[in-house]
Amino acid sequence: MAKKQLNVGLIGYGFMGRTHSNAYRNVNAFFDPEYQPVLKTVCGLVEGEAKAFADNWGYESHCTDWRQVIDDKNIDMVDICVPNNVHSEIALAAAAAGKAILCEKPLALNVAQAEEMAKAVEDAGVANMVSFNYRRVPAVTLAKRLIEEGRLGKIFHYRGQFLQDWTISSNVPQGGMATWRLDVKAAGSGVIGDLLAHSIDTAMWHNGPITKVNALTETFIKERMHAETGKVEPVGIDDACTFFCRFGNGSLGNFESTRYARGHKALFTFEINGENASIAWDLHDLHRLSWFDHNDEGKLRGWRSIHVSDHGGEQPYMENWWVPGLQIGYAESFVHQIADFLEGMAKGELAAPTFRDAVETQKVCDAVLESGKTGQWVDVG
Amino acid sequence: MAKKQLNVGLIGYGFMGRTHSNAYRNVNAFFDPEYQPVLKTVCGLVEGEAKAFADNWGYESHCTDWRQVIDDKNIDMVDICVPNNVHSEIALAAAAAGKAILCEKPLALNVAQAEEMAKAVEDAGVANMVSFNYRRVPAVTLAKRLIEEGRLGKIFHYRGQFLQDWTISSNVPQGGMATWRLDVKAAGSGVIGDLLAHSIDTAMWHNGPITKVNALTETFIKERMHAETGKVEPVGIDDACTFFCRFGNGSLGNFESTRYARGHKALFTFEINGENASIAWDLHDLHRLSWFDHNDEGKLRGWRSIHVSDHGGEQPYMENWWVPGLQIGYAESFVHQIADFLEGMAKGELAAPTFRDAVETQKVCDAVLESGKTGQWVDVG
Amino acid sequence: MAKKQLNVGLIGYGFMGRTHSNAYRNVNAFFDPEYQPVLKTVCGLVEGEAKAFADNWGYESHCTDWRQVIDDKNIDMVDICVPNNVHSEIALAAAAAGKAILCEKPLALNVAQAEEMAKAVEDAGVANMVSFNYRRVPAVTLAKRLIEEGRLGKIFHYRGQFLQDWTISSNVPQGGMATWRLDVKAAGSGVIGDLLAHSIDTAMWHNGPITKVNALTETFIKERMHAETGKVEPVGIDDACTFFCRFGNGSLGNFESTRYARGHKALFTFEINGENASIAWDLHDLHRLSWFDHNDEGKLRGWRSIHVSDHGGEQPYMENWWVPGLQIGYAESFVHQIADFLEGMAKGELAAPTFRDAVETQKVCDAVLESGKTGQWVDVG
Amino acid sequence: MAKKQLNVGLIGYGFMGRTHSNAYRNVNAFFDPEYQPVLKTVCGLVEGEAKAFADNWGYESHCTDWRQVIDDKNIDMVDICVPNNVHSEIALAAAAAGKAILCEKPLALNVAQAEEMAKAVEDAGVANMVSFNYRRVPAVTLAKRLIEEGRLGKIFHYRGQFLQDWTISSNVPQGGMATWRLDVKAAGSGVIGDLLAHSIDTAMWHNGPITKVNALTETFIKERMHAETGKVEPVGIDDACTFFCRFGNGSLGNFESTRYARGHKALFTFEINGENASIAWDLHDLHRLSWFDHNDEGKLRGWRSIHVSDHGGEQPYMENWWVPGLQIGYAESFVHQIADFLEGMAKGELAAPTFRDAVETQKVCDAVLESGKTGQWVDVG
Repeated sequence: MAKKQLNVGLIGYGFMGRTHSNAYRNVNAFFDPEYQPVLKTVCGLVEGEAKAFADNWGYESHCTDWRQVIDDKNIDMVDICVPNNVHSEIALAAAAAGKAILCEKPLALNVAQAEEMAKAVEDAGVANMVSFNYRRVPAVTLAKRLIEEGRLGKIFHYRGQFLQDWTISSNVPQGGMATWRLDVKAAGSGVIGDLLAHSIDTAMWHNGPITKVNALTETFIKERMHAETGKVEPVGIDDACTFFCRFGNGSLGNFESTRYARGHKALFTFEINGENASIAWDLHDLHRLSWFDHNDEGKLRGWRSIHVSDHGGEQPYMENWWVPGLQIGYAESFVHQIADFLEGMAKGELAAPTFRDAVETQKVCDAVLESGKTGQWVDVG
Repeated sequence: MAKKQLNVGLIGYGFMGRTHSNAYRNVNAFFDPEYQPVLKTVCGLVEGEAKAFADNWGYESHCTDWRQVIDDKNIDMVDICVPNNVHSEIALAAAAAGKAILCEKPLALNVAQAEEMAKAVEDAGVANMVSFNYRRVPAVTLAKRLIEEGRLGKIFHYRGQFLQDWTISSNVPQGGMATWRLDVKAAGSGVIGDLLAHSIDTAMWHNGPITKVNALTETFIKERMHAETGKVEPVGIDDACTFFCRFGNGSLGNFESTRYARGHKALFTFEINGENASIAWDLHDLHRLSWFDHNDEGKLRGWRSIHVSDHGGEQPYMENWWVPGLQIGYAESFVHQIADFLEGMAKGELAAPTFRDAVETQKVCDAVLESGKTGQWVDVG
Repeated sequence: MAKKQLNVGLIGYGFMGRTHSNAYRNVNAFFDPEYQPVLKTVCGLVEGEAKAFADNWGYESHCTDWRQVIDDKNIDMVDICVPNNVHSEIALAAAAAGKAILCEKPLALNVAQAEEMAKAVEDAGVANMVSFNYRRVPAVTLAKRLIEEGRLGKIFHYRGQFLQDWTISSNVPQGGMATWRLDVKAAGSGVIGDLLAHSIDTAMWHNGPITKVNALTETFIKERMHAETGKVEPVGIDDACTFFCRFGNGSLGNFESTRYARGHKALFTFEINGENASIAWDLHDLHRLSWFDHNDEGKLRGWRSIHVSDHGGEQPYMENWWVPGLQIGYAESFVHQIADFLEGMAKGELAAPTFRDAVETQKVCDAVLESGKTGQWVDVG
Repeated sequence: MAKKQLNVGLIGYGFMGRTHSNAYRNVNAFFDPEYQPVLKTVCGLVEGEAKAFADNWGYESHCTDWRQVIDDKNIDMVDICVPNNVHSEIALAAAAAGKAILCEKPLALNVAQAEEMAKAVEDAGVANMVSFNYRRVPAVTLAKRLIEEGRLGKIFHYRGQFLQDWTISSNVPQGGMATWRLDVKAAGSGVIGDLLAHSIDTAMWHNGPITKVNALTETFIKERMHAETGKVEPVGIDDACTFFCRFGNGSLGNFESTRYARGHKALFTFEINGENASIAWDLHDLHRLSWFDHNDEGKLRGWRSIHVSDHGGEQPYMENWWVPGLQIGYAESFVHQIADFLEGMAKGELAAPTFRDAVETQKVCDAVLESGKTGQWVDVG
């Protein structure tokens, strides 16, 4: 059956621009959505770089003004891969123009922005999604299924970490295209929006709403040079954040993120302890899921390391790839994301997380940020 | 050279009574302190059990009133292995009687008791130590040495966990000899005194003083039957506790303990992230230490799993055991503890942690307990 | 700079046809060879399946007679992904037609065929390569570099395994398109050509020539139904094979492969023990390399688990992918293979392993097969 | 109930003398056999060292002539911990004197000696055992139980390794008290008798008789200085040995041992692949057992790491030690060995492996040695 073409306009050609482009190019070779994304145009600040990006990934054209993308009647879908402080403006315009929207996380700088964006896409009735791609690592999706099947029983604990070490040197600058994540004006926050947003999205997907939080934040290096101006300026972001919380289901949460954990590059982890079973996972071995089942026979109980590479249809997404034992990597999570987004469009049921879902994550992020400042428990929402 | 005999009176014949007895019996076969402990007497509540224990471990006598041990002029050293609420009274009496004292952890029910006990042993000038045995797991001691050698550089993060799962069933009673740890009257607290006390002791030994804490505590099962009376009563202990904190050296701490972490029996862990290196360890594989050194050549950087079983004198305690590759277990940490205690007595320099050291741990425990109740940051001490 | 187009004709649309097609489609997005593969045509036995494959992967056309591909003047390169017994005929024809050739492994059914094929491509002067893709898993390439840098010193031992479990059931048929690997007529051998060929290629690349072998082979299930005819027939392949060997450098080899190792799906492993260092790797966690360096300080020696995901140019291939800590998977090894093949064509230096290199691997395979039959040591080549 | 005293005479005060002494001292504190070993005398070559050993471990006396031990009517049991070439003479004399005998492995230098020794103890009707202590590591015993329960189904593969690295330096001497294991006159063989004997004993216990073997042996360092004479002499032992074999039950074996595997100190491993399940274990983490059960639900299948530290009576030996999660070490395997030996004596049913059992292991060792020399398959026995 012939596919429906979906013309994509990508805004932002950084790291996420690459992961998304790769996904568009490959999704239809592995999955079978009704839609076929067409790489129509890419937009970015520096003309030469935008062109090189377009050439490399096969975009038909490029531009440097995102409004051109919005105004282009041929574009069906806008993909927002720019720094956080520009998400809102672009998304509102795209919604107004009736485009489907995929937006990088965190959705916004704060709840107010996020709410406005959610309302805009709902009012416009356009397809929308936020790129919390880790939900679609097969092991993470499998964890979700196990929880939904009720295998854990009552849940007591949920733990999450996102540990990196790339800003330990005081020579790392802030601002600019490569290090905007350290610039509070562009990023809004530090590890909270960049990393904990993933932890929070996954945790609430797995374990339901977080109701109150209590956080500790720290900025270890107080001043950094700006990448573009060369001026040494105060650092406004949080370098590290730990928070504990209560979930609506009575379980306790413990979360931590930092960019000062020497030896960990992108150690996103979670562990869930239930009455009957426990689950653990980490991004450094994303193709495995750890599983402990108290219902196993006593003398044989132990943590299982499940190599999530089966192809019998029992493990999410995996039967579309290779053969058992052969692992996929990081990039495939974005392929799954696009596949589900397209399938959702075809069905008329938006794939989660929508902008509305991301508002809930933003609420927790804001509460964490506030608690870090006040030193007090903060109710979410 | 003939050893000096040191007559030991053990009070309490439970789990810790066993680990200590095993250590006394074996210390001189593996280490060479000037003193030779002699298992003189064991004291416990039930006469028949005390006798059986004495027979099993080779104690010369037994009794049921601990005051008899104190009054016995032949006893040089009192070892306190009873529930927490009796530590203080026995220790004060033993100090007054001029006995050397080894006391199980936590030292006391609260800081006031602990201070009084520390003052008593100092005034009496008796040898004293608190049984935070995990310091003397060779891998944990090796971690201490690496920190002292300055290999980590500035420390950013210290994490500790102590996870168990033995009280998930509501059928587990509280009180009595087997489950006094669930009875707030006997234990003073739940996981804070029982498990986090270990985490805190190790953390402050490794990383210096904790200055302020913020805690979340929870009691998942609100009522349990009393093991002796059969009456269903409110549970007064904390089933789970998470806290974050600041250390005096500027690093952040994140600690968690629970008895509701399905799949973990005694998962005591720590991880330390420094500017130049990181260390991790856990009790389920206590013979290994994880080490990441950023000074390693770039393409070869990775976490090392050090099998702490060398015998070249470079790894603490290990040259006294077997040959490289052959691991020791849990019990040996107590052998090391007694070896160091005896060596300290011989040298006239008390081996840490003394009662005074344990007062500092108690201060943190009290602060955590208070913060858990108030929901506020609490300054330590 | 505009790329030179390289028109590819793929013969065979099975599992390997998919991995190669994916590589062609993506190589230029991540690497920068002078050539740009163009998916011109795919050829396979069943017309409808060939067409579906072409549609899915973007081939411009399809056919069912491989001679059409050879005869097509527009085709620059032929990619042979059919069962082993057809490699030779196609390769000879493709060489005669002056096509560049990529051939799946094992190159041939036996040394005589392999020699003829190698001579043919050399006489024709066409680019040629055999798809021993695992050489280009970054961790495996890194191992090669470490050996070449002399870090291991004298090598004593090389071990290799390739363990699977997919044929344990006697209901698995032989022959046909899905299970031709169990049909001795199509495959030539069982685990020797399918799996040990990989082990041998990697081993000789790492450790130099194998000079003599001694093998044990077994066929556990003696009869299987033919997938197409339904007739129960004797099984002619080896289900399992163990062999030990001597390498030219004085080291000893120990290799094993089986399809009856319950719990292992594609556990390809190697371990190399040298005087100064050791290396280990396995395919189930292909993004990691284990490294033990005896030159490390005594108390800190341990096996390192290197997460091969750096992007500083120190770890092969990885700077072309994502950011540190984000792993790639199985499919990327084929992308690297094509990238190197294309770069070799551009430079006029063939990337290894060429057909000639694969002759050496075939010699070992043949010797192993013979030794398995005779029970005697067999000299290689 | 009062214990029956069993007077032990230990011959040999080396490494094994220490492990056995530790076991005698502690067995009755943890297990409850009818017998109580009494450390009566220790015999060794150097008077001062024998005396120091006696003092350290609590032997009542010491001597330097093993015949004195045999002639001592008060001695009930002789424990032979001397180099392999002296086992036979002592054991024959001890049997003739009616002593119970525990003999270190390998039982003898060859099958003829072993047969004579087995006949002697049987004719004398004395209790006898060979110290293949690893059978009694709880995880290894648990593996045996799982096999006996039929959980693996038909077994296809058995693999064993024993890898060390302590003789890589050519400066390590041969002969003398510390390095007699490198002297062929004292040891009889190299890794075959020292290390593979363990692998073979465990394998046949788990998997039944080995019927034929094919081996590769190597001596990497051809000459070493003698530790006592200082003369450089040819090395007569095997430094490394790989063999494959057939078991009586149709499964295939692959075994390897070496003292040149850099990074491995005492890496004794086994893996068993059955139709329905697989088991793996290694000595560097002896408290864990790896278990894969194909009967687990598809999407949740994975290797379990069982922390063999339970105390519910389900895991062998463990309920006699501490509490769940707390591991034992190497030394405890000897405690279990003595406990079972004593229990066997009390019951009148000898605990395995008896001298007779060890004859079977010796047959395999001899066959491996012969095959290593001839390069031919050798039938066992």
